[in-house]
Amino acid sequence: MATQGQVITCKAAVAWEPNKPLAIEDVQVAPPQAGEVRIQILFTALCHTDAYTWSGKDPEGLFPCILGHEAAGIVESVGEGVTEVHPGDHVIPCYQAECRECKFCKSGKTNLCGKVRAATGVGVMMNDRKSRFSINGTPIYHFMGTSTFSQYTVVHDVSVAKIDPIAPLEKVCLLGCGVPTGLGAVWNTAKVEPGSIVAIFGLGTVGLAVAEGAKSAGASRIIGIDIDSKKFDTAKNFGVTEFVNPKDHDKPIQQVIVDLTDGGVDYSFECIGNVSVMRSALECCHKGWGTSVIVGVAASGQEISTRPFQLVTGRVWKGTAFGGFKSRSHVPWLVDKYLKKEIKVDEYITHNLALAQINEAFHLMHEGGCFRCVLKMA
Amino acid sequence: MATQGQVITCKAAVAWEPNKPLAIEDVQVAPPQAGEVRIQILFTALCHTDAYTWSGKDPEGLFPCILGHEAAGIVESVGEGVTEVHPGDHVIPCYQAECRECKFCKSGKTNLCGKVRAATGVGVMMNDRKSRFSINGTPIYHFMGTSTFSQYTVVHDVSVAKIDPIAPLEKVCLLGCGVPTGLGAVWNTAKVEPGSIVAIFGLGTVGLAVAEGAKSAGASRIIGIDIDSKKFDTAKNFGVTEFVNPKDHDKPIQQVIVDLTDGGVDYSFECIGNVSVMRSALECCHKGWGTSVIVGVAASGQEISTRPFQLVTGRVWKGTAFGGFKSRSHVPWLVDKYLKKEIKVDEYITHNLALAQINEAFHLMHEGGCFRCVLKMA
Repeated sequence: MATQGQVITCKAAVAWEPNKPLAIEDVQVAPPQAGEVRIQILFTALCHTDAYTWSGKDPEGLFPCILGHEAAGIVESVGEGVTEVHPGDHVIPCYQAECRECKFCKSGKTNLCGKVRAATGVGVMMNDRKSRFSINGTPIYHFMGTSTFSQYTVVHDVSVAKIDPIAPLEKVCLLGCGVPTGLGAVWNTAKVEPGSIVAIFGLGTVGLAVAEGAKSAGASRIIGIDIDSKKFDTAKNFGVTEFVNPKDHDKPIQQVIVDLTDGGVDYSFECIGNVSVMRSALECCHKGWGTSVIVGVAASGQEISTRPFQLVTGRVWKGTAFGGFKSRSHVPWLVDKYLKKEIKVDEYITHNLALAQINEAFHLMHEGGCFRCVLKMA
Repeated sequence: MATQGQVITCKAAVAWEPNKPLAIEDVQVAPPQAGEVRIQILFTALCHTDAYTWSGKDPEGLFPCILGHEAAGIVESVGEGVTEVHPGDHVIPCYQAECRECKFCKSGKTNLCGKVRAATGVGVMMNDRKSRFSINGTPIYHFMGTSTFSQYTVVHDVSVAKIDPIAPLEKVCLLGCGVPTGLGAVWNTAKVEPGSIVAIFGLGTVGLAVAEGAKSAGASRIIGIDIDSKKFDTAKNFGVTEFVNPKDHDKPIQQVIVDLTDGGVDYSFECIGNVSVMRSALECCHKGWGTSVIVGVAASGQEISTRPFQLVTGRVWKGTAFGGFKSRSHVPWLVDKYLKKEIKVDEYITHNLALAQINEAFHLMHEGGCFRCVLKMA
């Protein structure tokens, strides 16, 4: 390609400061170095983690930066030593890397990968501990190793999932975060069995994906819990069989669920990021075996609590990141499942906007009627 | 037997009030009703749960009562409908019942049994919601469905494990609580695999049993943590390979363990009942897969806390009661393992006293050199 080895100047949404509107800027994107891949991002969705860091509440948030981590695009060029993807490949950038070599990847017990975390955690690339983004010489930090709110981004090769080129990128971009997180929480982390009773706290995209995952795992009852009753109609289409609005009850929500289920649910999922709800999710589990999975991301510094008796009497408290999916291995598999119509993706997309409308898209996120908003980048 | 169907008057240690010395009294023990078994207790050990309720800190503690739940004896008589044990059988009373019929027993997921819990939790027998113990007409409450600090006790038939009569009752009485709790925490709850790195917080009887269980499961490193360094010599004999005294370090103990183990342990066990140590035990686990099991019983009202990030990044928090062993099924199996010299029992017994010395035995429990003290009842 003509751009290979060259700095590319393109449009990106830059977060200069916490909580200030993102600015569409001309950004210089340096060529990929060894082990790096430069990707032309065609579609990106917005996720609550972007909003969280943007808000300034994330103590690890670095500014100025380019947010975004749920996207799809095409490889523009690759750095030295990159063999698994080539220019023209259709890819999904993955905030959770998979190097297949580190202690984590080799453990067979987790999808977390340690290889590039030290760099991506501080907004730089591992090779030279510098950013590939700049504006007139001012470096702009990377975010989550993906920075998909840019027409071009540079990521580590261990963070790129190559997918079937027939997949529509404007849809499968969602397989970069929220949908796999929900499905995997059920399939990989909780391992829900047929006949199980499931409770889902929070019916956003992740909660809906949990419902879909639970339905496909054969759950007999899928109880959706949300303070917005309008979500129930949508939730039904994803498998939710019963709806509980905590505002309709005086009793603590865990007691409401325990009463509804003859002692509690087999599996519960917290998909909000609220530590008080995390406790309710644990305590609505059945004595002896109920397992609660924390999927939502709580604000920094907040803590979860319960009486240890809850665990001593058999409940299990766990959590999940990217639903336990190994990114490079499983994202292409999820794309294939989508193409075979085995999992939903289109149904989560309620809004389509352009990159220039990104601030409007962030506002939409906080409205009940919005699940996922996809931005067209070019 | 001549006593069958008759009230038996025998010696028992009665807790009249919280925190007052136990009194050896002549107690009337009524005959067993339908589904009940009267047992002549020959040997009982003391456990910290007895001391906890005796202290008055247990909000469910009822007085006057007869404490004790780790014992062995011989069936004196049985009530109507009892078919699985007969007079003369050697038995271990089990505070955790196993009815094989309730939702819990049939679940295949837990050793907790729901059948008699509503009665044993309030110090009475299920049949008539009354106690079988009295002193000159004043009822004395049962405790944990066992009340083994009496020469005769009455228990529900679902709470009696029949064991091989060649087993020495003065030893295998320990298989009624502490030793199975520790072994089972490793084998059933954590399912420690060969090569694992294990941390044990608290090197009392339960902690030593965890060490023995971990050694037999093939753990490669077994790190014992205790504020009493004198325990290390004993602990070595049970499999502990390294010893850490938190008092020797300025850093939080979880950081000490993480540093010692290149990122944390695979499994940790809290065997004290201290909620702050429970947090340390969780947080010394390896990111991605470390599992922490709460074995100790915390005081009422206390809570455990951590940042949810600890779970979202792959740690698992669970607990165990009686080590996940199904009492009537597994206690006889543990006795057989002891007879085949596959598990230790004798080595936990540091003191042997008589029933009349029970208050002295409670004092000994709080000394570092005492693991288990066995009382001869007759």
